[in-house]
Amino acid sequence: MRKWKKKDLPVAEIRRYLEPGPVVLVSSRWKEQANVMTMGWHTVMEFSPSLVGCVIAGGNYSHDLIRRSGECVINIPTADMLDLVVDIGNCSGAQVDKFERFGLQTAPAEQVGAPLLAQCHANLECRLYDKSLIGKYDFFIFEVVKAHVAARPKTPRTVHYTGAGVFMISGQTLSRRRRFRADML
Amino acid sequence: MRKWKKKDLPVAEIRRYLEPGPVVLVSSRWKEQANVMTMGWHTVMEFSPSLVGCVIAGGNYSHDLIRRSGECVINIPTADMLDLVVDIGNCSGAQVDKFERFGLQTAPAEQVGAPLLAQCHANLECRLYDKSLIGKYDFFIFEVVKAHVAARPKTPRTVHYTGAGVFMISGQTLSRRRRFRADML
Repeated sequence: MRKWKKKDLPVAEIRRYLEPGPVVLVSSRWKEQANVMTMGWHTVMEFSPSLVGCVIAGGNYSHDLIRRSGECVINIPTADMLDLVVDIGNCSGAQVDKFERFGLQTAPAEQVGAPLLAQCHANLECRLYDKSLIGKYDFFIFEVVKAHVAARPKTPRTVHYTGAGVFMISGQTLSRRRRFRADML
Repeated sequence: MRKWKKKDLPVAEIRRYLEPGPVVLVSSRWKEQANVMTMGWHTVMEFSPSLVGCVIAGGNYSHDLIRRSGECVINIPTADMLDLVVDIGNCSGAQVDKFERFGLQTAPAEQVGAPLLAQCHANLECRLYDKSLIGKYDFFIFEVVKAHVAARPKTPRTVHYTGAGVFMISGQTLSRRRRFRADML
């Protein structure tokens, strides 16, 4: 397994990883139960506090673990993990221990009880910030309270879902920094 | 300008375009005022009704046009439009008529008053579905009521933002359809 040397990232800067829209792996723990799920319906909502909104449908085993514990970790996998990402999304924690089945290596988080997935490029520790939309839309608004990211490469190759079993892999990076007004950066 | 031959897409299938996380151009109109803005904070929230949640900050000229009209169009630009996408995001409709400044070609929408941006690969006509989160998070929940997409290419090259003036361009497409459980497709 790839060993990442990780550094802390200011939580107000996590858009760098989430805004391009990658599929993520969400890990959670409540009492003795832990799980991990594949998730693609998320958006950055604010820089500070660092807010992320996610849809986690009630049919997912993770839904209750996250609602009850009020915590999770959003882990960002890289393209070499594509098959693992698919397989994690195609079984349920109600039937299997995914950590054991997939040999997932974990590390303790600093501020939440859910485990970090060590294999992922970035790990965002999250606390439930606003639960008012869970009932109507299964929409959880989290605050990212701690972010661990690989020191390099600067830009991970990420996996993006388009439905129907088809993924897009992130491509080249282009800077247009010089076209930006200073206050828009 | 590229001429797209467009077809209708069932609105429950718009995840194909939005879920990978592209930067979009949001067009709006209220009475005699129209505008277009660059936006990257959005997520699919439901298949049917076809719901999309977006953050459109109060500082944007478009915020009031959309809140008042209860409508907008989410247009999906392609990578060849990158500089235009940046430039549209770096000026305000309060100062300039962006349609005129950038020579944007429009077409009438079918179900909303906001114009479609003809140059974009896909155009999603949206009605405001839930305004309850606008006050607290500038978060608009839209229902996509009509979707027009280019017949080909099947997969557009899209632009994804990572902050600090740096963009990722969508890369290769991979099918893992055979790894999916039938009910997960």
